[in-house]
Amino acid sequence: MNKRVITLGEIMMRLSTPGHERFVSSNNYNVVFGGAEANVAISLANWGVSTAHVTAFPNHDIGKAATQYLRFAGLDTQYVFFEEGRMGLYFVENGAMQRSSKIIYDRFDSVFANFDGKAIDWKEVFDGADWFHWTGITPAISASAAKICEDAVNAAHEMGIKISGDINYRRNLWQYGKQPLDIMPGLIAKTDLIIAGLTDFENCMDIHEKEYIAACKKAQEISPSIKYISTTHRDNISASHNKLSGVLWNGKELLNSKSYDMTHIVDRVGGGDAYMGGLIYGLLKGGDQDALEFAVAASVLKHSIPGDANFVSADEVAQLVKGENVGKLLR
Amino acid sequence: MNKRVITLGEIMMRLSTPGHERFVSSNNYNVVFGGAEANVAISLANWGVSTAHVTAFPNHDIGKAATQYLRFAGLDTQYVFFEEGRMGLYFVENGAMQRSSKIIYDRFDSVFANFDGKAIDWKEVFDGADWFHWTGITPAISASAAKICEDAVNAAHEMGIKISGDINYRRNLWQYGKQPLDIMPGLIAKTDLIIAGLTDFENCMDIHEKEYIAACKKAQEISPSIKYISTTHRDNISASHNKLSGVLWNGKELLNSKSYDMTHIVDRVGGGDAYMGGLIYGLLKGGDQDALEFAVAASVLKHSIPGDANFVSADEVAQLVKGENVGKLLR
Amino acid sequence: MNKRVITLGEIMMRLSTPGHERFVSSNNYNVVFGGAEANVAISLANWGVSTAHVTAFPNHDIGKAATQYLRFAGLDTQYVFFEEGRMGLYFVENGAMQRSSKIIYDRFDSVFANFDGKAIDWKEVFDGADWFHWTGITPAISASAAKICEDAVNAAHEMGIKISGDINYRRNLWQYGKQPLDIMPGLIAKTDLIIAGLTDFENCMDIHEKEYIAACKKAQEISPSIKYISTTHRDNISASHNKLSGVLWNGKELLNSKSYDMTHIVDRVGGGDAYMGGLIYGLLKGGDQDALEFAVAASVLKHSIPGDANFVSADEVAQLVKGENVGKLLR
Amino acid sequence: MNKRVITLGEIMMRLSTPGHERFVSSNNYNVVFGGAEANVAISLANWGVSTAHVTAFPNHDIGKAATQYLRFAGLDTQYVFFEEGRMGLYFVENGAMQRSSKIIYDRFDSVFANFDGKAIDWKEVFDGADWFHWTGITPAISASAAKICEDAVNAAHEMGIKISGDINYRRNLWQYGKQPLDIMPGLIAKTDLIIAGLTDFENCMDIHEKEYIAACKKAQEISPSIKYISTTHRDNISASHNKLSGVLWNGKELLNSKSYDMTHIVDRVGGGDAYMGGLIYGLLKGGDQDALEFAVAASVLKHSIPGDANFVSADEVAQLVKGENVGKLLR
Amino acid sequence: MNKRVITLGEIMMRLSTPGHERFVSSNNYNVVFGGAEANVAISLANWGVSTAHVTAFPNHDIGKAATQYLRFAGLDTQYVFFEEGRMGLYFVENGAMQRSSKIIYDRFDSVFANFDGKAIDWKEVFDGADWFHWTGITPAISASAAKICEDAVNAAHEMGIKISGDINYRRNLWQYGKQPLDIMPGLIAKTDLIIAGLTDFENCMDIHEKEYIAACKKAQEISPSIKYISTTHRDNISASHNKLSGVLWNGKELLNSKSYDMTHIVDRVGGGDAYMGGLIYGLLKGGDQDALEFAVAASVLKHSIPGDANFVSADEVAQLVKGENVGKLLR
Amino acid sequence: MNKRVITLGEIMMRLSTPGHERFVSSNNYNVVFGGAEANVAISLANWGVSTAHVTAFPNHDIGKAATQYLRFAGLDTQYVFFEEGRMGLYFVENGAMQRSSKIIYDRFDSVFANFDGKAIDWKEVFDGADWFHWTGITPAISASAAKICEDAVNAAHEMGIKISGDINYRRNLWQYGKQPLDIMPGLIAKTDLIIAGLTDFENCMDIHEKEYIAACKKAQEISPSIKYISTTHRDNISASHNKLSGVLWNGKELLNSKSYDMTHIVDRVGGGDAYMGGLIYGLLKGGDQDALEFAVAASVLKHSIPGDANFVSADEVAQLVKGENVGKLLR
Repeated sequence: MNKRVITLGEIMMRLSTPGHERFVSSNNYNVVFGGAEANVAISLANWGVSTAHVTAFPNHDIGKAATQYLRFAGLDTQYVFFEEGRMGLYFVENGAMQRSSKIIYDRFDSVFANFDGKAIDWKEVFDGADWFHWTGITPAISASAAKICEDAVNAAHEMGIKISGDINYRRNLWQYGKQPLDIMPGLIAKTDLIIAGLTDFENCMDIHEKEYIAACKKAQEISPSIKYISTTHRDNISASHNKLSGVLWNGKELLNSKSYDMTHIVDRVGGGDAYMGGLIYGLLKGGDQDALEFAVAASVLKHSIPGDANFVSADEVAQLVKGENVGKLLR
Repeated sequence: MNKRVITLGEIMMRLSTPGHERFVSSNNYNVVFGGAEANVAISLANWGVSTAHVTAFPNHDIGKAATQYLRFAGLDTQYVFFEEGRMGLYFVENGAMQRSSKIIYDRFDSVFANFDGKAIDWKEVFDGADWFHWTGITPAISASAAKICEDAVNAAHEMGIKISGDINYRRNLWQYGKQPLDIMPGLIAKTDLIIAGLTDFENCMDIHEKEYIAACKKAQEISPSIKYISTTHRDNISASHNKLSGVLWNGKELLNSKSYDMTHIVDRVGGGDAYMGGLIYGLLKGGDQDALEFAVAASVLKHSIPGDANFVSADEVAQLVKGENVGKLLR
Repeated sequence: MNKRVITLGEIMMRLSTPGHERFVSSNNYNVVFGGAEANVAISLANWGVSTAHVTAFPNHDIGKAATQYLRFAGLDTQYVFFEEGRMGLYFVENGAMQRSSKIIYDRFDSVFANFDGKAIDWKEVFDGADWFHWTGITPAISASAAKICEDAVNAAHEMGIKISGDINYRRNLWQYGKQPLDIMPGLIAKTDLIIAGLTDFENCMDIHEKEYIAACKKAQEISPSIKYISTTHRDNISASHNKLSGVLWNGKELLNSKSYDMTHIVDRVGGGDAYMGGLIYGLLKGGDQDALEFAVAASVLKHSIPGDANFVSADEVAQLVKGENVGKLLR
Repeated sequence: MNKRVITLGEIMMRLSTPGHERFVSSNNYNVVFGGAEANVAISLANWGVSTAHVTAFPNHDIGKAATQYLRFAGLDTQYVFFEEGRMGLYFVENGAMQRSSKIIYDRFDSVFANFDGKAIDWKEVFDGADWFHWTGITPAISASAAKICEDAVNAAHEMGIKISGDINYRRNLWQYGKQPLDIMPGLIAKTDLIIAGLTDFENCMDIHEKEYIAACKKAQEISPSIKYISTTHRDNISASHNKLSGVLWNGKELLNSKSYDMTHIVDRVGGGDAYMGGLIYGLLKGGDQDALEFAVAASVLKHSIPGDANFVSADEVAQLVKGENVGKLLR
Repeated sequence: MNKRVITLGEIMMRLSTPGHERFVSSNNYNVVFGGAEANVAISLANWGVSTAHVTAFPNHDIGKAATQYLRFAGLDTQYVFFEEGRMGLYFVENGAMQRSSKIIYDRFDSVFANFDGKAIDWKEVFDGADWFHWTGITPAISASAAKICEDAVNAAHEMGIKISGDINYRRNLWQYGKQPLDIMPGLIAKTDLIIAGLTDFENCMDIHEKEYIAACKKAQEISPSIKYISTTHRDNISASHNKLSGVLWNGKELLNSKSYDMTHIVDRVGGGDAYMGGLIYGLLKGGDQDALEFAVAASVLKHSIPGDANFVSADEVAQLVKGENVGKLLR
Repeated sequence: MNKRVITLGEIMMRLSTPGHERFVSSNNYNVVFGGAEANVAISLANWGVSTAHVTAFPNHDIGKAATQYLRFAGLDTQYVFFEEGRMGLYFVENGAMQRSSKIIYDRFDSVFANFDGKAIDWKEVFDGADWFHWTGITPAISASAAKICEDAVNAAHEMGIKISGDINYRRNLWQYGKQPLDIMPGLIAKTDLIIAGLTDFENCMDIHEKEYIAACKKAQEISPSIKYISTTHRDNISASHNKLSGVLWNGKELLNSKSYDMTHIVDRVGGGDAYMGGLIYGLLKGGDQDALEFAVAASVLKHSIPGDANFVSADEVAQLVKGENVGKLLR
């Protein structure tokens, strides 16, 4: 697809125990790199969209390894900045049955959190871009990260680029003195597509509706730039078995997707980012219901793939939407 | 069991990504060797049948490794021929949930495809044998492979040996100028037991019935040597969950097997070959319904075992048929 | 919890094939150490109970490795005795679907079986202890092991320490000349809590009731010291899918636990020991129904964890009992 | 370094047994991708040179995986062409002590060998480029590959771009009807820097001198475009221990490098390509002796790194040249 | 040995690439825990010395895993304190031949660095102890860590416990405002045994002698409590091959150890800590030359063992000192 | 080679820690099967000799796996007997540098030790055989094993088959009441080729010479059937570096082999068996000096291969003897 999407956000090293080993018993970790926004960009790159990710890495061998991983995944890495400091990381323990999966974050004081962003020329970054994506994680990390996010949203808005934001409220972040309501409304006000659940509406927009449609309408009242609002519904039968569907409010109606039974989950981390990526892709192609179905199907496939990134092709997603070649042995 | 079965066919190196890794993310492959006909022989060898497999391998260390693998699996390898050339191979990616499993073949121009078979003395090979098994893959590979298969079927037929053929139509093969209908009818005409579904009947026997019994009857009309026709029914709920049953036409009635719910599939490649092996074993022992039940149960167990080969004992299969010791912890 | 529990029993090296590999195809084993009684102690140690395990190991590097494993798991190893000889071991093959899991024991003539126990000063061992746990495996191993078990039960009983015994009748043991009925009744007679199913009652107490409550009452008649009797109900849908619940007879009524659907079993070995550990923990805390629910939930979680030991926290178990945080992604 | 280098050639999947396992005993292969020319490009990309590699891959998931590997390694992949067909591959067994390492090639009939190259616009490819690198492998593969190589050399020569060629005579190739002397002289005639040993001179330029300097002078007589000729000297004490040095003829004198004792070789495959990359880098920077020393040091470091690619920084190479930080523990 | 040694210091998670993989190519890390002082304690615990390590860990699953690792290694963990925060970590890349090994630290802002130590009752900790060991890393981490180290040294000194300090000057630490000369002299003034090289003397004691004996004499002049001063001499032939010896100044003469040729280094991280452990053990047993030889031999063996910890027995070290059973196959 | 060799002896499961891990740190073992005599047979099978091994295995899945391993290695397994019982095993820890390798045996009370051998018909076994090989391990295991060995030697001797015996005195065995001198002289008296060092002469033949030639002459005096006596000389520079040579007494002179520097040993277990295999092979081909050189070269190559078995070809050995292709990269 002849489009260009820019994403901004921290990328961490992900260290996960093999199989279903618990942290205490594992003397060996699988290593990849991941971050909510970069995961979206990787989805899009897999589907032929030109993508560049803006971030900061430590200027040592592991920062370089992370950069090479992004290139492997198809991202343009010219806006990766290198500075002295540490890379954030997170540890993943993959649950099974009734036992939950666990993530332990170790991301404070990272290069990205301390990055002042002065080296970013947003005009240049957004030149030729069609879409910009941010999440609620970035403004939650540090004052400087929040400032970078605001600069990006402002620049994109001025340049007439479509903007998406995954509100994604994380209680454990927001430790630098600001509260979501200090910052999020300003960002949302210039955003076209938001991913938000009722809790996110509460925490980030001070909207206290009980009904999703009512919340969507209120959000659009407050921030008329919003064209689309979406969220997923996940039913946690167990760590190994979830049901997943999505809804998309397009200002007129609340579209509902098919619901999928995910009976043998391999790795659910990154499932939301796969949804976000699918939604952006679908909306870039056009067709609200199609976009929603593509997003959910993309997210479902992510649950079958180890790691954060959704290494599936657009054809594979499209076939799942159509119910073709599902769970077969393709020769 | 005091019987001897001869199988003929290409054996490839199988390279599969570990766990549910996708090809793109895997820097490590598990290696075994497999081929539809040899997989049948391995099943039979596990169950105490004397088996020899006729094939050709490259005369280098990997050809030798493949030969040693066959010996490990219990096959007589005196009819493995070594020539200059390459070994065919295939790459396997194990799906999960809605994501399909994938096989990428790389088998063209292999030693087996180029093997002229002049070194094979079929009289000697079949001396003391009770059964010969071929599949529709061999005549699809090359003119010389088709010729070897014809020679084998003719020799076995003349020597009064029972013959089975898994019709197994593969659209991606048949690239050397001949079509299935040029060759398959002649082979089938001398075969006692065939595995065929409706598509196979169409492509290989020009039979266009919609009903399985009708197709079977038509096939017997055309090729009166056929005593048994069988096929499996597989319901692909997902890559992780299938239902499996089988039917066996014995010239009089269509026998139906129990249906099994395979809820946590480990590896479905080779499932059909396990069925074929079970059917041959069962028919060598006698009892049509018993043979069918043994075949399906054998195939079910294969789905729980990594690799192509069905390393289960005849006792384990027999217990599953009887519903004994199913899914327990045996001490 | 400010309690101290003593356990006694053999610990073996456990060698298990990776994933779902069969013994024949595996050239690599995962290694941990396990034993029914030590597994109980490990559960308790995880939950903050002070535990010491009494056993004998070979006085070579692997005996030392086993000791270090016990320390890793939180046990006090001051009562591990080192002697010339071999360590018992067992091989585990993890089934899937209809294919059963398999254990091959190689435990005869071990250091523990030959250990005369003269070095154990049970007064010292039980000093400060609240509970002693034994199983029916120990008296089944050898005359000397049976003697050690009797000494321990007698000493604990004299010192007024609560005693639990998992009757756990193993047909393959008891090869040294004695039968269960020669020995078990004496041990049971001083025990407060026993785990026993109908078969165990038959083999170890000569009780031939068909109904569980009747059997419990008879057992209490014979051995009035018994306060609690418990067992689990396991429904083996397949090797990958079991249902589990438990019952606890407290002398007045038969309490029933919730039943859990274990749909994606990772490793069921040690599931019974996890239950036992949970029951002891729960009874030490108090509350019969709570103890039973804690035991079953602990056992369920064990099925999601590779290896014999139940490395879960008391909080995780308690949450499962309450249905909180079940199968989620905890950040 | 603000330079751009273009490389052309086949890339194969490399399957190597782990550690020092022999082919026969290994059921697991490590997978990377490699090719003589791409290995050179990867070295250069590591050192900050802009590089693009021209090649053809199969249009399936493994062709895509290979492309992503090249991106990971820092290459511009816009000139990777995708066609129906197979990817060449090679198997590596890593020797030790007196036991040699072994490579088994399986590269015939690959997509690259069959690629007609019509889609390549060499003017566009070479636009902005400073250097073009080819090897004697490409014209040895097939008539079409030889034609592509000639087109590339001609176009680069016309556009005034510096050209290097690793003569690299491979007896096992050249099976399509042409002999080296039919083709190589024409390519060499337009090349500035060649890597050639005495055997290469014989086979590819019909030069039969016994002395290296005499051969170099003769080569320049025949092909006056040649500015530099180089080769390495390797002393095979064992598979684990080699000595390595290099020489560079610059038209005036034969420069000799330091000699390195490589006492614990990890992986020698790709050592020659690392040398070539070092030489190009050094000559782009300037200074004949410096370039030679950089090349040898780069090659030495390659021997310490698993895989084909020389993932070392220019600083690491420069430090080895200076004898700084050699074999230390850097914190 | 019936002695008790207390150590104090930070413990980090160590993440190392397998084999000789570089950071950029590794998608899998081996995980252990290590720290200079705990490594010393582990050596001593292996040799039968009672050891307790004082440190702080995060109060999450990975902090618990670290604690269990210490117990596995034989340490008394009652003085491990748990607080909110992160665990420091370091990444290790194992060099080979001329390529150096690399450590990337990520230890700032750890729980230990932020630990105020108020919960430590040094009187209780040192009760029954014979020796206290600290290193120059602790006062370099943070003001609070320096304070804890001073408190410990003061308490031990007052209680008449022998004290050792590995001066171990690390340029990359000391970032909290203090310089080594602000703090180290005070600690050294109460220490009996120091490990220091000429650079350490310069940076930590302001001693600028060129000769080791002269520096030792000056150090004793300044800090008369010092009884012993020691250091190792390492000759870095390559990352795979070092020579190692040690010297011990006992106030009268400079003793020299045997020199060892370490020709096939497996892992040199922790080699210095193994030396330190050996020296403490040897001096606790008595005999200056014996202690020195034990220390060097212990360090040599460490280089043959993966990970930070020196899992060798005292017998193994003693045999190496005597030249018995060196490099044999012991059955 | 058109010869048939019969070997007799116990085969154990070999469990070795990966890389250079110590027992205490390893949670994973590599698994193969090995035994001194079977290792000899595997060498010979690799070199085209027809071989059958006589042994007894447990009649469970691991006994079957061992049998399949022998078939993989090319042995005729028709004389493998299956009985109730355990398989002996041994644990291997691979040393490095000054740290010795370690083997812990756990072989007592195995199926082979308890096997009465009544099912063996030695006339049938030796029918068509040219050579029989035994070692001093078999008579050391148990009275019944000694009896089997005697029966075999007697039968072979009567049938005029050449006999070799590796005297191989193992102090830890011989625990069933007999001493070597009770049994070995009788076996040696009918043997043509023995491998014996001075200690073996002492313990097994009561020969107390200090000089090897004198001992050989004395041995031939005592047992005139002996035609050849041989032993290896191993210089243990370290666990990673040995020197190896051999001598062969042919009744006339003591032939000396070349000496090899084995500088990077991968696995030395089985090195003596590889020598024995080489000697038998060489003597079957003819030429005393050639046989000796082949034997030493075969043993050297074994040291480069993980596991007990010497998976090298006769060509590879012959090339090493000639100094061709040593430590190269063969394409």
